[in-house]
Amino acid sequence: MTEKELVLLFADGDAGARELLGGKGANLAEMTRIGLPVPPGLTITTIACRRFYEEGRRLPEGLAEQLAEKLSVVEKQTGKSFGDAQNPLLVSVRSGAAVSMPGMMDTILNLGLNDETVQGLAANANDERFALDCFRRFIQMFGNVVLKIPHARFEELLAQKRVAVGAQYDYEIKSATLAELIEDYKKLVLQETGVSFPQDPHEQLLMAVHAVLASWQNERAIVYRRIHHIPDDLGTAVNVQAMVFGNLGADCGTGVLFTRNPNTGEAVLYGEYLINAQGEDVVAGIRTPKPIAQLAMEMPDVWAELQAACRLLESHYKEMQDIEFTVEKGRLYILQTRSGKRTAQAAVRIAIEMVDEGLIDRREALRRVDPEQLVQLLHRQVDPQTDSDVVAVGLPASPGAASGQVAFSADEAERLGEAGEKVILVRPETTPDDIHGIVQAQGVLTSRGGMTCHAAIVARGMGKPAVVGCEALEIDLVNGTLRVGERLYRQGDLISIDGTTGRVFDGLVETIEPKLGAEFARLLSWADEEARLEVYANADTPADAEAARRFGAVGIGLCRTEHMFMAQDRLPVVQDMILAANEEERQAALDKLLPMQQGDFEGILRAMAGYPVIIRLLDPPLHEFLPDEMELHKSVWELEKAGDRTALAEKQALLTKVQRMQEANPMMGHRGCRVGIISPEIYEMQARAIFQAVAKLVGEEGLTIKPEVMIPLVGHYRELEATRQVVVRAAKDVQAQTGVKFSYKVGTMIEVPRAALTADEIATYAEFFSFGTNDLTQMTFGFSRDDAEGKFLTHYLMNKILPANPFAELDRNGVGKLMQMALELGRATRPDLSIGICGEHGGDPSSIQFCHEIGLDYVSCSPFRVPVARLAAAQVAISSPR
Amino acid sequence: MTEKELVLLFADGDAGARELLGGKGANLAEMTRIGLPVPPGLTITTIACRRFYEEGRRLPEGLAEQLAEKLSVVEKQTGKSFGDAQNPLLVSVRSGAAVSMPGMMDTILNLGLNDETVQGLAANANDERFALDCFRRFIQMFGNVVLKIPHARFEELLAQKRVAVGAQYDYEIKSATLAELIEDYKKLVLQETGVSFPQDPHEQLLMAVHAVLASWQNERAIVYRRIHHIPDDLGTAVNVQAMVFGNLGADCGTGVLFTRNPNTGEAVLYGEYLINAQGEDVVAGIRTPKPIAQLAMEMPDVWAELQAACRLLESHYKEMQDIEFTVEKGRLYILQTRSGKRTAQAAVRIAIEMVDEGLIDRREALRRVDPEQLVQLLHRQVDPQTDSDVVAVGLPASPGAASGQVAFSADEAERLGEAGEKVILVRPETTPDDIHGIVQAQGVLTSRGGMTCHAAIVARGMGKPAVVGCEALEIDLVNGTLRVGERLYRQGDLISIDGTTGRVFDGLVETIEPKLGAEFARLLSWADEEARLEVYANADTPADAEAARRFGAVGIGLCRTEHMFMAQDRLPVVQDMILAANEEERQAALDKLLPMQQGDFEGILRAMAGYPVIIRLLDPPLHEFLPDEMELHKSVWELEKAGDRTALAEKQALLTKVQRMQEANPMMGHRGCRVGIISPEIYEMQARAIFQAVAKLVGEEGLTIKPEVMIPLVGHYRELEATRQVVVRAAKDVQAQTGVKFSYKVGTMIEVPRAALTADEIATYAEFFSFGTNDLTQMTFGFSRDDAEGKFLTHYLMNKILPANPFAELDRNGVGKLMQMALELGRATRPDLSIGICGEHGGDPSSIQFCHEIGLDYVSCSPFRVPVARLAAAQVAISSPR
Repeated sequence: MTEKELVLLFADGDAGARELLGGKGANLAEMTRIGLPVPPGLTITTIACRRFYEEGRRLPEGLAEQLAEKLSVVEKQTGKSFGDAQNPLLVSVRSGAAVSMPGMMDTILNLGLNDETVQGLAANANDERFALDCFRRFIQMFGNVVLKIPHARFEELLAQKRVAVGAQYDYEIKSATLAELIEDYKKLVLQETGVSFPQDPHEQLLMAVHAVLASWQNERAIVYRRIHHIPDDLGTAVNVQAMVFGNLGADCGTGVLFTRNPNTGEAVLYGEYLINAQGEDVVAGIRTPKPIAQLAMEMPDVWAELQAACRLLESHYKEMQDIEFTVEKGRLYILQTRSGKRTAQAAVRIAIEMVDEGLIDRREALRRVDPEQLVQLLHRQVDPQTDSDVVAVGLPASPGAASGQVAFSADEAERLGEAGEKVILVRPETTPDDIHGIVQAQGVLTSRGGMTCHAAIVARGMGKPAVVGCEALEIDLVNGTLRVGERLYRQGDLISIDGTTGRVFDGLVETIEPKLGAEFARLLSWADEEARLEVYANADTPADAEAARRFGAVGIGLCRTEHMFMAQDRLPVVQDMILAANEEERQAALDKLLPMQQGDFEGILRAMAGYPVIIRLLDPPLHEFLPDEMELHKSVWELEKAGDRTALAEKQALLTKVQRMQEANPMMGHRGCRVGIISPEIYEMQARAIFQAVAKLVGEEGLTIKPEVMIPLVGHYRELEATRQVVVRAAKDVQAQTGVKFSYKVGTMIEVPRAALTADEIATYAEFFSFGTNDLTQMTFGFSRDDAEGKFLTHYLMNKILPANPFAELDRNGVGKLMQMALELGRATRPDLSIGICGEHGGDPSSIQFCHEIGLDYVSCSPFRVPVARLAAAQVAISSPR
Repeated sequence: MTEKELVLLFADGDAGARELLGGKGANLAEMTRIGLPVPPGLTITTIACRRFYEEGRRLPEGLAEQLAEKLSVVEKQTGKSFGDAQNPLLVSVRSGAAVSMPGMMDTILNLGLNDETVQGLAANANDERFALDCFRRFIQMFGNVVLKIPHARFEELLAQKRVAVGAQYDYEIKSATLAELIEDYKKLVLQETGVSFPQDPHEQLLMAVHAVLASWQNERAIVYRRIHHIPDDLGTAVNVQAMVFGNLGADCGTGVLFTRNPNTGEAVLYGEYLINAQGEDVVAGIRTPKPIAQLAMEMPDVWAELQAACRLLESHYKEMQDIEFTVEKGRLYILQTRSGKRTAQAAVRIAIEMVDEGLIDRREALRRVDPEQLVQLLHRQVDPQTDSDVVAVGLPASPGAASGQVAFSADEAERLGEAGEKVILVRPETTPDDIHGIVQAQGVLTSRGGMTCHAAIVARGMGKPAVVGCEALEIDLVNGTLRVGERLYRQGDLISIDGTTGRVFDGLVETIEPKLGAEFARLLSWADEEARLEVYANADTPADAEAARRFGAVGIGLCRTEHMFMAQDRLPVVQDMILAANEEERQAALDKLLPMQQGDFEGILRAMAGYPVIIRLLDPPLHEFLPDEMELHKSVWELEKAGDRTALAEKQALLTKVQRMQEANPMMGHRGCRVGIISPEIYEMQARAIFQAVAKLVGEEGLTIKPEVMIPLVGHYRELEATRQVVVRAAKDVQAQTGVKFSYKVGTMIEVPRAALTADEIATYAEFFSFGTNDLTQMTFGFSRDDAEGKFLTHYLMNKILPANPFAELDRNGVGKLMQMALELGRATRPDLSIGICGEHGGDPSSIQFCHEIGLDYVSCSPFRVPVARLAAAQVAISSPR
């Protein structure tokens, strides 16, 4: 098509034109092409959307004409005519961007109805009530989406009528009342907008297209794009499609389904339908729909046809599909297909089974699973032995267990979540306006909606536990209470949910480690075959090390030693060491610490026998181990008041020492190797403890032990040279004393910009580099993470000053450039230099991609992210040219 | 010479062989070559010294033989013979490195004396007492330097004899007593070392050479090298020279002189001498010597010969010389010559006058003045109108005024100085062991010594004020008191000194700005002709700006706006702004601040009319303007005790706000453009204040104003893009409102590593870059300067972990590499980008050299360092290839 063609018929497009037609439009075209029963229609392209914004939110020139022209083809295809009082064509108008943004933009149904065509519809359908109800819905949707009249204003009028006629449900309202309601709606429109409801279908269409294009820049769409890193200039397409009706009677219906179970991955159709309903009734969660399998009984022909369509779609797209369908007077229409969102468990099982079915190959299977999503599988689950009270059971909409304070609004959930509180968002149902609250919540609990309602879809997408449609909950938003039977919860009260089973618990529940299935192991073994990067774990304890091995880590990339100093029985000894008045006292304290540290190292090294273990010598400033200054001040003031001279003098002396050690910017102060250089006896003790542990495991237990000693915060090669000497001397001493020979490496963190800039010099003294990208990011940006995340980073992300949180996703242009320099300079000095990353980025797929690209040897991350990293490493290896 | 020749006769060397022969040896050879009366001798080369250390502090192979061989030539030249009982050759053994290290290493005189040769010396000199005194001195020096017996042990024995014979001065002790003393000395040697004093002159010589070579690595030499950045592997040469005696009677003497006055630069001989004395008596400051001019009366022939020798040396070396001479029985010997140390004033005058005399050209004159030394000229002087009490007057040994607490030991001075106290080191005399105390003191005051004593030389070298030989002072080191007439000072009491006049004041004195002479202006005008770098000043007030212009700055490179916020009358308004409960309150406070800021800007811009003024928008975190948290805590606790509810609630609320704004690492927290982005109204107010000031000066006063607005702490181009918009909008508004057109620039600091790494992106939005090397150094090293300098940097420098303090001297390998990257990336985007530096390094000559080399446009420094920078910029331009 040419630049000037702004509108394309479904019949003229295909799945490849996704960028131009949006995902929905491309799939409608593709389905049309392969012969599926799709109501005819057309797509206004994303080019039109971009022009719309370029021209100041005006419909681009020529669009109206092209629209009219293509619409006339649709009229021919359907045999109906737009605005025809006898046989009116009605259409839906829906947005559809290249990237799926479910529920984020606007949709209008039943467009084309007016005071005349509604009569024609009634006559054709032989159902006046149906036609009036369509008109009523259309005015309401159009009024809300296009004319910006609050939804609630229409709902109020509807509710008045319900009350007036004593109806409990909308479908109990009769034609005459609906006709009155339509007049009330029209008055509302006139009153709110100053003009009458537009009767001309062409005018309706152009207004609707304008509104849908404008919805690309509505608040919630912007937020959604920010969260999902979708570019703002992509634009949306608009699909205009002939309406079919699922609400024309008992031989009608509508439904949504997945071609496989999106929770478990099982290869059976999974979904829900409603008889005599329009699509929005299913998605909005207002009526609780029936499981799809029941359709086999209710409409066996349609069921068979639907199954065939699903098979065709899967074999065509080679992917699990999420389908919307409508049955109009016994005839099946497919309204939409797209790749189905799924849980991690389902993603893994579907990928594996599709390989077994011959639909895709192993590499494609690896590509199919989002590494980030695997974290779901590793979520803790509710302990089956728990004796917590189950207060209610809802639908298990998104797996995993979560606990937190009850929050009744998205704003409140956001506020508490940002303040570091754990929150469960409790709502009757959620809407796209609640996204910001769901982001900050641990989990979501709703009293209404099915497995495919908004809350369920969004929570699954984010990997957060959700329980929906839990009808036992009585939520009173006005008074801020949640009543479940006898129990009453207010904001701040604790509850728990189990998204795997749908249970809701009182208070906090015990959770247990998840069990990983065989499919999971199979997928990751394929991943390891493809990956070039090795995956290590950060682990400080034997238990962590064991978890790391279980998740498939082939080394420890960062074993921090400071946590060993923090243990309750050791802290007093550590404090004695720090506050020692002289060399002897200090050495005495160190002598006490040595066997403790040695024991720690024995445990970890034994757990990792055969694999490298990188142990970082002490990193935090020593004052972190001392009592809090403010607390000491308080004690001093209190002792002054009490007049206890002896205690006062002692506390005062301690306070003075603590004050002397305070720092203006501890992050950049006396820590890391600076401590090891000023007080070499500390590093010496640690090195001895490591090597004594090694000598014991090698000598007495005959294990293969691969210790690597890592010096933190090196910025100048002389720092490494000096501390390295201490380590080497300790190793020689231990070897001489024990008579056990062992090999070891000495290396350094690259976490200070200067280390990266002078990596050629530093590599002279380092056998390995490990990028500490947490600190490297802090110093490269000049961001103190503690301060930035609370004070300005959120604003930066919201306002797109930064494209992403650099502490979550490696900043390639800045920090990444330093890493590349360090790598090139380091390898120039020492070609066999081993280089890895041990910052949190080591578990982030986008960062892992970068690590692969620049040529790192390994990434190291928390044990629970090891599977994520293994898969991400495989994906980047698959997609990179060899 | 070949690698194997370790010893060279004076007659075989020249001034060019400085590295091999050391400064002293090369000059002795050169003087011998040009026919000056130099006692014959030989030099053991620095190669021998390096071998000495390579071979574990053993005299290198072949040295002894070569020494004996060359010594036999000296024997022939002198007609005396080493160890000959009748006509013994005596020699001095002195160290002499390529770089002058005055007094840092050891010297031994009169070597060759023993029980036999002392008789020959007595006979030849016809003076038994003289010979015995020489022997006594030799044993003492040898015993101290070679055998490491404390000097005091010998002095005790000497003092006993003085008391025993009732002598006040050593020269009153007669021969017989000296003979006894010699026996006492020998016993002391036997007792302390277990062996007898060595009688064999060859053995004496080898032992002395060993000791002098070893003295290269003594404590004070190591400290001196660290302070003066002298490489450790340079090594020292050793000069062995025939002794001549200034202490053979009234027709003998010894002296030191400068060929021009080292304080003022006046072209007259300047120095001191003593009749009947050895050189050490002058330098040690034990006897107070006579001014050199008196020699014209006392020894007219020698005076004439000395003047001729000085003229020859100056015309030969084309440099002011520092000479040691001895007169033996009426015959003049020149013992040493070297470039004379001088004050800045003298350096400037000498350089200028040597150009006028045709000795050197202008460029050479520019090279001759140490830019760092110019700071002396800019030192504040004692206000002539002061009414402070002058308690004593000593010799004006090093110019400038200083005040501080009395400290009686170098250790104490160091301790207090490091703690940030101002200290005057008060000593009877100083020795090389006191260096560390002088480094930390504001000034030095001694009761003994002349203008060339240790304290004077060292203080002048460091540019610190010093008053020496102030005999009115009674210093009691044991009791820690300084008595001057009626007054008594103890450690910690305040005194002041004026090193320009020699006055000592009670308490603190008023000081005034220095006046700069015509020579100074002439030299700097030559400098400006040569320099490529422009020199701007950092100035925050109109007074600073005027000083900057006076010192020749051609722009303001950094005008900080935060100090304007700190003024006493503004701080409450600033606090209102920060603590504002809502937008309106905040805007009201900003509206009050705007006219104040505008007034500041008018003053500075007017003072700099015609020159660029770079104004930096607010940089510090806002909490810096709030009350101290600890103080508030205290108030709260006190109000709690007092039970004052209303006041307590108010204070508590303030405390809560202050606490909420606290940061873990404020240096990397919510400051700089981060404040301007979160609170754009602040930057907007500042921009409006700047542009309203500009509009007024341009519109009403018709001045040429060149404002440049600088955004601090930018790390990502989006930060600059966003803040730039605010500035540009303010400029447009002001132009529209006032109808005055003006031009301006917007640029940024490059002070965050990421800014340097992404300078190509940032340059899109910046018309200039200014390197903020203080912060850039902090973040590149990960050093919080506040913490580093107090906690570990001193240790790093002492132990050579770092070669220099990176906050004083730009770190080329790390920070410098980032600067180079930023420059290349920035100019690639915007070839006409103006680039400068405004960190403290902008006034450091070594850093200025680097700035020139990488192609900066300007450096900006404090007004007082502008002359330093102008000269340094000229020097690097002269020495760089064009």
